Amino acid sequence: MIKVGIVGYGNLGKSAEKLIKNSKDMLVYGIFTRRDPKSLDTNSNAYDFESIEDHVGKVDVMLLCGGSKSDIMKQGPLVHKYFNTVDCFDTHAKISEYLKQMDEIGNEHNTLALVSTGWDPGLFSMQRVLFESILPNSKTYTFWGKGVSQGHSDAIRRIEGVKKAIQYTIPVESTLKKVREGSNENFTDRQKHTRECFVVADCDHDRIREEIVNMKNYFSDYDTTVHFINEEEFDKNHNKLNHGGFVIRSADTGDGIQNMEFSLQLDSNPDFTAASAIAFIRAVYRLSNEGKTGAITVLDIPLSYLINKTREDLIKMI
Amino acid sequence: MIKVGIVGYGNLGKSAEKLIKNSKDMLVYGIFTRRDPKSLDTNSNAYDFESIEDHVGKVDVMLLCGGSKSDIMKQGPLVHKYFNTVDCFDTHAKISEYLKQMDEIGNEHNTLALVSTGWDPGLFSMQRVLFESILPNSKTYTFWGKGVSQGHSDAIRRIEGVKKAIQYTIPVESTLKKVREGSNENFTDRQKHTRECFVVADCDHDRIREEIVNMKNYFSDYDTTVHFINEEEFDKNHNKLNHGGFVIRSADTGDGIQNMEFSLQLDSNPDFTAASAIAFIRAVYRLSNEGKTGAITVLDIPLSYLINKTREDLIKMI
Repeated sequence: MIKVGIVGYGNLGKSAEKLIKNSKDMLVYGIFTRRDPKSLDTNSNAYDFESIEDHVGKVDVMLLCGGSKSDIMKQGPLVHKYFNTVDCFDTHAKISEYLKQMDEIGNEHNTLALVSTGWDPGLFSMQRVLFESILPNSKTYTFWGKGVSQGHSDAIRRIEGVKKAIQYTIPVESTLKKVREGSNENFTDRQKHTRECFVVADCDHDRIREEIVNMKNYFSDYDTTVHFINEEEFDKNHNKLNHGGFVIRSADTGDGIQNMEFSLQLDSNPDFTAASAIAFIRAVYRLSNEGKTGAITVLDIPLSYLINKTREDLIKMI
Repeated sequence: MIKVGIVGYGNLGKSAEKLIKNSKDMLVYGIFTRRDPKSLDTNSNAYDFESIEDHVGKVDVMLLCGGSKSDIMKQGPLVHKYFNTVDCFDTHAKISEYLKQMDEIGNEHNTLALVSTGWDPGLFSMQRVLFESILPNSKTYTFWGKGVSQGHSDAIRRIEGVKKAIQYTIPVESTLKKVREGSNENFTDRQKHTRECFVVADCDHDRIREEIVNMKNYFSDYDTTVHFINEEEFDKNHNKLNHGGFVIRSADTGDGIQNMEFSLQLDSNPDFTAASAIAFIRAVYRLSNEGKTGAITVLDIPLSYLINKTREDLIKMI
């Protein structure tokens, strides 16, 4: 059994705990938290993050479940000094810098880190590379949704008078269709996605709507629809963190259009992100046992390392 | 430049020649054929297959483009004694045996073989392993089509009185829908695919139709539709080898259904099969340069080996 430590106990950490407990080749060694360990609502062992050093040798892989904005770039280097790690770091612009830092630490301390798993970055990155390797002369398109954007929902909640809010990102069907048919156009943000918001607010609906649709970096470059609903309806119909998306690449190879597509429709973003990370925990465990150190990405791992199968059974899946 | 030899000059060999000539990091060293090399309609160098030994040291990878039924299991072992090879061997039941044989030859002769690339086996195999690694407690469904089945078209053409015939395999939409929504039912062949045939025959339409729909191993387990059309319409509308398919896996992870899907819609099956194989030629070239020998599958290769990019540019794609 692969012994997994979970660092951080938010949505992702909770999903990871549940799914690792259901897996056949892993167990939850414990949760590491910066809160009071006794305050966590869990049956797993809970430990103070500050004590993590004491667990060296007892944990095979640490899954870093903190937020990308402020946690991972601090916690990753700390934890990686003592443990193999897997994280879902998703600040695309900083992945290269973070990877380099984690690689140095891993090589110095004989530990292995896999950075930026999950579905985007993660599975979507894998498909983008696979698609481009096969159809080199074309363009890859990524669409997100229909799904909840936490960042955009947060942005609406910061507007005065808003009690509750959720924002769904929705791919534009007509653009999806063009891309599937082989278009290589450069589409604008507005052409690719629309944004739909459900807001609970007692009054000032017109002002709130204006503030939302004109909000720079978030909504002003998109066609945005705002629905005001009552709290009961909100709690009943908008309580899920569903998400998903599409990676699409088409190319004319001479004898016609070849179209490749990968898509996800997820009722629970945290569950699926955790499920993806767990497959990569298995790979890190195996690669580490083979002596691999430093930091790697989802592009550096043969698929056979992800799955709990014998070689013989694996060949049957081909 | 990676120097590629093409063994066999049918549909797949011709597509491979065209696409390698368009690639930025490969060139066609030559075509190897069992026919008279002078008879080939090509601008590439054409050589007698029997002379292949004379080219040792001049070719980086040989792409085996013969048929799986009778060519590959004979040619593979012969060619692999002298060269790295890539093939699209697609007789699923014999892959394990063939892989073992090629592995022994490669380890003895310091060459590397990649067996069973293409899209199924190949890309579909990769997605099946990826999907199961992430959503272990569920079932993977593979659907083929809409597309031309060469085997079924051939079977119809063997019926007395048939002048021309083509068969399209079509996934059943209602079953696709069930699978996407998370069903884990065991579907029969009839529930998964229908078969549509276009036939040119001067007379005996009723007899021919009966022979088709009742043909064992080919049509009797499916709902089959037979259209008799004239030769002009046949030549105009049914002259393409289009194909495609879907790999779908859904699972309930506790907080709802997670759905993963990979799909291909291909105007030209030979072009796309060649395009897939070419990405794996690149990987075999690189792995061979690193000293890898024996025989491997698409599951044994990190995705980074498939693409013609620097490490720095690759990390940007994450």
